[in-house]
Parts: sequence; C-alpha cells; structure tokens
Amino acid sequence: MRDVFIIGVGQTPVGEHWDLGLRELGAVAIGQALADAGVEGVDALYVGNMLSGCVNGQENLATLLADAAGLLPAEAFKVEAACASGGAAVRAAALAVAAGVHDVVLAVGIEKMTDGVASTVAAGLATAADQDYEASHGFSFVALSALMMRRYLYEHGCSREEFAPFAVNAHKNGVGNDHAMFREPISAGDFNRSPVVASPIAVLDAAPVCDGAAAVVVCCRDRIGPLHEPVRIAAAAAATDTIALGSREDILTLGSAKRSAERCFAASGLAPGQMDLFEAHDAFTIITALSLEACGFAGRGEALRLAREGCISADGCIPLSTAGGLKARGHPVGASGTYQIVEASLQLRGRAGANQLAKARRALTQSIGGHGSIAVTHILEA
Amino acid sequence: MRDVFIIGVGQTPVGEHWDLGLRELGAVAIGQALADAGVEGVDALYVGNMLSGCVNGQENLATLLADAAGLLPAEAFKVEAACASGGAAVRAAALAVAAGVHDVVLAVGIEKMTDGVASTVAAGLATAADQDYEASHGFSFVALSALMMRRYLYEHGCSREEFAPFAVNAHKNGVGNDHAMFREPISAGDFNRSPVVASPIAVLDAAPVCDGAAAVVVCCRDRIGPLHEPVRIAAAAAATDTIALGSREDILTLGSAKRSAERCFAASGLAPGQMDLFEAHDAFTIITALSLEACGFAGRGEALRLAREGCISADGCIPLSTAGGLKARGHPVGASGTYQIVEASLQLRGRAGANQLAKARRALTQSIGGHGSIAVTHILEA
Repeated sequence: MRDVFIIGVGQTPVGEHWDLGLRELGAVAIGQALADAGVEGVDALYVGNMLSGCVNGQENLATLLADAAGLLPAEAFKVEAACASGGAAVRAAALAVAAGVHDVVLAVGIEKMTDGVASTVAAGLATAADQDYEASHGFSFVALSALMMRRYLYEHGCSREEFAPFAVNAHKNGVGNDHAMFREPISAGDFNRSPVVASPIAVLDAAPVCDGAAAVVVCCRDRIGPLHEPVRIAAAAAATDTIALGSREDILTLGSAKRSAERCFAASGLAPGQMDLFEAHDAFTIITALSLEACGFAGRGEALRLAREGCISADGCIPLSTAGGLKARGHPVGASGTYQIVEASLQLRGRAGANQLAKARRALTQSIGGHGSIAVTHILEA
Repeated sequence: MRDVFIIGVGQTPVGEHWDLGLRELGAVAIGQALADAGVEGVDALYVGNMLSGCVNGQENLATLLADAAGLLPAEAFKVEAACASGGAAVRAAALAVAAGVHDVVLAVGIEKMTDGVASTVAAGLATAADQDYEASHGFSFVALSALMMRRYLYEHGCSREEFAPFAVNAHKNGVGNDHAMFREPISAGDFNRSPVVASPIAVLDAAPVCDGAAAVVVCCRDRIGPLHEPVRIAAAAAATDTIALGSREDILTLGSAKRSAERCFAASGLAPGQMDLFEAHDAFTIITALSLEACGFAGRGEALRLAREGCISADGCIPLSTAGGLKARGHPVGASGTYQIVEASLQLRGRAGANQLAKARRALTQSIGGHGSIAVTHILEA
C-alpha cells in the first residue's frame, strides 16, 4: 500500500449560487485545486455527491465534471454515501493511489441544493433514511435527528440550551472564513430563542440548505514536488450502521463514527488526545455531541461539559470545526466531507487565514451520512 | 499493486420484480455470491446503481444493502457512472483489494426500474445525458441513440435491417439463460417488422426496462481457497468522453470505449484476437456495432459484416453476449455491468450451463454509460 498525500485544495464559497450550475461550481473548485497542486491533468476524478439525481436531474455527474473541467478522458465515477459522500470521494481517490493504479487523482465534493423547491430538497435529504420504513411514513431528516436529541436530553438529564456552545463556536469560526455562508456571530441567547423546526431541534441547531463544491488533489510520494506543502493521509476508514434508527440497540451511540475513528487511531498509532483539531459533522448540534463521544474526545454524556468548558474553541484542547463547520460554513450535503478535508489541510499547511490555529499538526475529519448509518473518517498529518 | 480475483458470483433473474424492493433484490444476489465464494462477511461493499435517487427515492443505498444482507459494519459506498455503474462498482472493489486496504470485497450492481411510472424512468435514464444542453430540451436517451444510428446508416450506406443479427443472436442466447428476461428466439423478420420507437430505432433494437441485481466477490491471492475456481482480473480501465453528443468530433467513435479497451489490452499484453468472448453493452444495436469497432474486433463500418458472417455467434470468432446481453437478458441499467462480469466469470469457470462455450479462457467485458461518455472495461482470465 502506497502512502497518499494531499497536494492541492480548492473550494467555492458556500451559499445560494443561483447563477451557477453543477458544472460551473465543480469547475471552479477543480480549477483551484489543480492550480494549487500545480498539475494540469489527473488520472481519475471521483465525485462525492448525494442529490444530483433527485434534485438536479443529472446523473453521470463525474463525466459532466470531467468534461466541464477539461479532464477528459480521465476515469470518472460519482461516489454516493448520503451526507458522507464528500468524505467517501476522498477515500476512493486515496484507494486508487494507494493501489498504484493511479498517481494523481482528484476528489470533488459537490452539491447544488437550490435547484430544487424546498419540498424536493426535504424529500431528497430523506432518501438518506430508510425509504420503506422511515421516509415514506413521513419522517423527515430533521425529525429523525430530533428523536436522537430528545433521547439525549432525557437520558442525560440536560436541556436544549446546553447545546448552545456548539452553534456559538461554529458561527464564531464562520466569521473568519471568507468561504462561509454565515459570517455573523450568534449569542447563546440567539440560540435559545431560535424558532423550533422539529422539537427539540431549532433553526440554530441545524446546518443550512446551500450550494458548494470543494476539491482535493491526492498523489503518491513520487509526485510530490519542491513547491508542494504535502499533507499525508495518515489513516482513513469507513464503517456502517443500521440505516433505520429504530433498528439500533442504542440511538445515542454513533456506531459507524465510533468504529471508523477507532480504526483510524489503531492504524495510525495515534490517540484522540494527539489531534490538534476535529472537523466534525455538525449537521445538528446533537450530532456534534454524539460525534465527540463516538471519537473518544468525551465520555458518554460528557460532550456538553466539554463544550461548556471551552474545549472546542480555537484555544481549547480540541478545536472544533475551525472554518465554521457544517453549521456556519454551510452544509452542501455531498460536498461537506470534502470541505472538511480542505479546511483541515489548510490548517496543517498553516494557510487557514484568520482561523489559523497556533498548533496544527494532526487533524481528525469525520463525514457522516444518514443518522450515523455511514461514517468516513480521516486522520491528516502535516 | 496486488492481483485481484473473482471467487464468487450471484444474480437474480432479470425481469419485472413487482414483489421485491431494492433490499430484497440486493440481498438475494449478495447471498448467492457469498455462498459461492464460501465467505460469510466482507471488508467492504461497493454498489453500482444509477436510478435509486430519482426513481426509488433511496440514496444511502450501499448502507441499505449492507444492512439488509447482514454485512454491517463493512465500509459501503454507492458508485454511479450512469449505465456503466455496475462495471464501475467492480472496478472500485478491485482497487480496494489491489491497494491492500481490503482483502475480500463485494461489488453489487442493482436497479429497480419498475418502481417508477414510465415517464419517471424515461426522465431518469435521460439524467445520463447532459441535463442543461440535451435532456431539458426534450432529448430522451433513445432519441440520442437514434441520432447515432441515423448517422451510421448515412455514413456507411447501410440499412437498419442489417443490424438484425445482433438482436437475433442476443435472443438466441437468452433462450439458454434461465436468468434472462426474454427467453424466446426472434427472427430477422420479427426484427424488421418491429414497431419504431425513435426512428431508426425500433423495439427490437433496444434493451428493456427491468429490475435485477448481480454480485461478485473479489479477493487477493492469499484468500483463494482450495474450493475456489478463481477468475483473475487481468486488466481493468475506465475512460470518459464528452457528456453531450454534440460536443464530439465524431459521434461514430465511442472514444471512452476505445481508450479503456486499448488500456486493458496494453496492460495485459493481450490483443482482441485472443478474447474468447465479448460481453458488450448492447443497449441498442447501434451501440453493439460501435463497441465492436471501438474495441478492435472490427474496423470502422465493418461491424455489420462481422455480424452477417456469423462471427458473433457461440461458434464464431468473437462470441457476443453469450447470456443474452442487455437486449435479451435485460438491462437493469446500473446492474448490467455486474451481470456482464458474472456471466463472463461463469463462462471462464465452465459453469455457463446451456450457453457454455467450447473454449472460454479470456473474456472482455465492457460497461458503457451515457452515449459512450463513460466506459469501464475488464479483461478476465481463467
């Protein structure tokens, strides 16, 4: 197995891009990543995306992007793992390089959600749940997350207000990221007064509907040049759990997140305490809390204390979602996993701008699909 | 790069499975493949599928199938490359094994088209074309193929009737395959009198809308046991071409098919004349002809002569689609590429039943998406 390195990254601003389609968003992110890597072509292109079929009426998406970005005749597939698609595309790219089949490969995460009316997007997001036993009975994606949050409140005897630090931290970090959708700070009071979407989840617990594309170029050791600032993929793993929430023994354990993180730590010989930042899948504040617990940063029911004590801020013990996370940077679903890896790479290269951490040598990124039914975890190292 | 072997295959009959959903179809094919391989679990599961988002309302499909087949917590992604998805899933599985990251991996191709009304399926298939410049202007998938066939008739001065041997051969082979959707022979007269769909394409030029799932288990050399009849993946390659037909210099050259086949021949040191069978992507008779020319079995404009002279039959120089092909076995789009590899593996193992060829040592399989915008080609060796 060959070592794999990230040598280029690109990203569009996250937001409502009414004037850009899939091909334009993709080409912008790809162009930036190729320029950053200083390469003109790639051997293959793997595209992480969830909704292009049901929201945009466009499959064969990887070919579309290869064509739009001038990368023909490169091998090109779309990789779908619900909201973890952006992480899965990077995983697929790294596998092809590790195998020695390709030397330089692009992974692109992309989502264009504003093409659909609100009901189409809500139905699209629900395709990550079990269509037969959940979605077709009226469960939306938010409603399923609300069940998890309700259970957390009950089991740990806490209040929704205690989740405020996650949203406050994300928005604070979003201020310094000029690619973020939301760049205004919010207060705990704003969070507490936020209108309810699906009780106990309110607007400020949840990541927004938006568009965006992010790209990374990965390569083998031989292709690292003198101008590169390579970031090594120290470990990667993916794992699954039941698709339906009701099939789980315990809905407060994100089994896929836990297992994939454990595999990454075992493979790299590293421990949670050695991570300098955690790009978490903070689609809802409850998922942030459960991710911290699944990855070993907090014990069961301890994530809120971690947040309350300031551990998740830039100068804390485990800085969380330093570019604003899914909550403030935005959550173009199939792209988010790639945005996480772009941000972590920039931090490790010392190029994270206003949000640069004082120490950033190792990062954990975790992209979660469904309600923890699939997770893709990476450890990156400078 | 490690060598990769196919050690188990499974397939459901192709047809209209009104009583089976995605999870049931997938579990049947997976169960057969695992039993054939004599393994109980796998390290990862890659699912080839095109339409689950827009026709079935189900993304996160790989997790659904891992769950339904008892394969949790294995890594699981869906791979989409339009109608080439089934070939792309096998490619992804082989990459993970070649990399040394996984030892035993499942690739499953699956499509459930009868969930949708006819217009939904037609719109779904058109998502393989360029949504902005083709599909949204009313081009159906058949209409685009009709343009290619019209041009072929014009450029080579031939008639639609000369394509009859492709359909006649496919249906003849379908008779002997108990997993085929159509098991009745047809005559050249039937073909000639067939009702027009999009001139010059008629019903008997085209593969049917249907459901099905096929699966293969791949592994590294160390995991081959004494009871296995391993089939080696001697070469694999994927390539892309412009997504829009109108962007091509020449719509009678399937550039992606040509390039991926050339790469396979170069990597394996083999030539077209050394192939004992060709599982072609015969979604339309025109695509069969163009594939034969792209892969070097016939010169430009020579494919019809090859067919006329009987070269494509079981005792000819290049037996074509020995299990009935997309035309008669059926074309559950994202599954077809996996069905091709299942059939080729059975031939190479001497287990193709009534359709067994006298000599079957090496097979070429080619899965094509869009109108040749993506192709995935494999050479398998006994």
